[in-house]
Amino acid sequence: MSAIDLAVIAGDGIGPEVVAEGLKVLDAVTNGDVERTEYDLGARRWNATGETLPDSVLEELRGHDVILLGAIGDPSAPSGLLERELLLRIRFELDHYINLRPSKLLPGVTTPLAESVTAKGIDFVVVREGTEGPYTGNGGALRVGTPHEMATEVSVNSRFGIERTVRDAFERANKRERKKVTLLHKHNVLSYAGHLWRRTVEEVGHEYPDVTHDYAHIDAAMIYMVTDPSRFDVIVTDNLFGDIVTDLAAAVTGGIGLAASGNINPEGAAPSMFEPVHGSAPDIAGQGKADPTATILSTSLLLAHLGREDEARRIEEAVVADLAARGSQPRSTTEIGDAIARRL
Amino acid sequence: MSAIDLAVIAGDGIGPEVVAEGLKVLDAVTNGDVERTEYDLGARRWNATGETLPDSVLEELRGHDVILLGAIGDPSAPSGLLERELLLRIRFELDHYINLRPSKLLPGVTTPLAESVTAKGIDFVVVREGTEGPYTGNGGALRVGTPHEMATEVSVNSRFGIERTVRDAFERANKRERKKVTLLHKHNVLSYAGHLWRRTVEEVGHEYPDVTHDYAHIDAAMIYMVTDPSRFDVIVTDNLFGDIVTDLAAAVTGGIGLAASGNINPEGAAPSMFEPVHGSAPDIAGQGKADPTATILSTSLLLAHLGREDEARRIEEAVVADLAARGSQPRSTTEIGDAIARRL
Ligand SMILES: CC(C)[C@H](C(=O)O)[C@@H](O)C(=O)O
Ligand SMILES: CC(C)[C@H](C(=O)O)[C@@H](O)C(=O)O
Repeated sequence: MSAIDLAVIAGDGIGPEVVAEGLKVLDAVTNGDVERTEYDLGARRWNATGETLPDSVLEELRGHDVILLGAIGDPSAPSGLLERELLLRIRFELDHYINLRPSKLLPGVTTPLAESVTAKGIDFVVVREGTEGPYTGNGGALRVGTPHEMATEVSVNSRFGIERTVRDAFERANKRERKKVTLLHKHNVLSYAGHLWRRTVEEVGHEYPDVTHDYAHIDAAMIYMVTDPSRFDVIVTDNLFGDIVTDLAAAVTGGIGLAASGNINPEGAAPSMFEPVHGSAPDIAGQGKADPTATILSTSLLLAHLGREDEARRIEEAVVADLAARGSQPRSTTEIGDAIARRL
Repeated sequence: MSAIDLAVIAGDGIGPEVVAEGLKVLDAVTNGDVERTEYDLGARRWNATGETLPDSVLEELRGHDVILLGAIGDPSAPSGLLERELLLRIRFELDHYINLRPSKLLPGVTTPLAESVTAKGIDFVVVREGTEGPYTGNGGALRVGTPHEMATEVSVNSRFGIERTVRDAFERANKRERKKVTLLHKHNVLSYAGHLWRRTVEEVGHEYPDVTHDYAHIDAAMIYMVTDPSRFDVIVTDNLFGDIVTDLAAAVTGGIGLAASGNINPEGAAPSMFEPVHGSAPDIAGQGKADPTATILSTSLLLAHLGREDEARRIEEAVVADLAARGSQPRSTTEIGDAIARRL
């Protein structure tokens, strides 16, 4: 097993703090089998040089095995600029068409839902499409600043893009116990994209006779998520609906401080990127208050992606043990990272 | 006070059952001061004649003071057809640009949220834009059925459409105790529409010095809705985000069985339409199981819209009293309607 060639983008706000703990755990579990290259990207660089993601840096990123990202976004940059030109650009250019976001209610974790709702447990994974939908930046504005201003946003969807995502969802479902795929969309209104998604799920579904599938409108899914989340096993959905539903999923399984994600290029044509679902939280940056657990769990997804299943599992177990033992006493970012590393 | 000239579209599934109770309460509170005209629209008509909404019927609808709608949508019709050609067409043609959806956690109501979350109460109203956004049917499909199929959906937004909606939200906030408007969008990704929404809120906000306003991304709003819903007072948002967030809002305040809505043309250029947020629920249709409370509360919104505030308040009070007295014993649709009517 050769060392992991890891690109690290700590990024903005709490990014560097949580990434430090992720790296601590990654080093510990692999016995230092990680060669890191740190990339200075985000608000600091933009403020200093005006650069978001130079093409040469993007090319360098391609050369690594895998990327760990903290968080991107800062009030010092124009709103949305770093998100679009850095974070989303990496996802698109490296063809991260699977945005994988597992949600599991772990023992000891406080959820905002009543006990009657969570009694049956929560354990599902969202396969969010990562390179299409309303996220492609297509659209425009006319007569800006006048009373007749207009703005459009175009959601772009292809059979190619949807099929590979849906197939990934069925593959994952096939390996799980309940073997169920749920498509979330809004086909009664967004009929062009909606029908393409539905037909694709139908057709790919035929190739997986052991996997059942159903459908829910995205609005109805909101209700299920807070009244009957145990019904979900594998959710597949588009880029925007996936963004929305995974924040809700994170909230009901203990909060954004625990939610891990992978931006995956399954064929390995480019490195995949792992990151916590949370943002840069500039209001608490630098105070040691951020929970690094989401980043630590993201390193577990990272290892699993590299086929290092055993190490991945050990991180997950350490996190589970730490969560079960968490008291009401608040701990610092470093204390949580240390505690998890000690349990490995 | 002349009689209310009411158009009734009972519609599909549980529509007729819940509308019957809404009319019962409306008759009782107004002492029969309602002249109704019933319109046979929905799946039955479509199956019999192939018609969804003939132009002549649309013209007739325009002649009434106000419309009460049950629910639209049935498995016997092509998916989404009745929703688009009947329900959405009415909203668009009658320029129902305000889709008003109040959310209040009432005493005695069971919520899926933990007590710690609901302790501070929930009482907000969503002002959902009703005639633009991704709901206009713009988009298309290419190479349908081939591996190279593509589908687009276009979100259309205008300063005109947004400004009148935002102004309505500020007007409502100005009359409420907390006087706060929260815009929900995703401007870091949907930058064209997002910036138009944000600028409009900023600018209209200047005209309302007593009203504060803030912003949340739609994904972050999911988290707030289940962890800190008391932060919301008046939410303003686009057609699709409003669809999504109001189902979640309904769920956390006791479920879709209680959620009322108004599709409003504030200037009265066309009749406004009131309807429960829930759908036609074909699986329980005809069984007397549907909760008519959402429709009954919609008749309260209807009366308030007509300036009959006193009657509107009496319905709300009757519902509040009924909810507070609800035991665990299930009651039929008619029993609930009767119980509420008795309390008027
Ligand atoms: C920061 C933003 C562009 C991003 C997204 O919308 O994908 C974030 O919300 C996420 O979910 O990873
Ligand atoms: C039935 C459907 C078209 C409708 C919508 O999306 O507006 C419904 O979900 C609603 O919220 O009233």
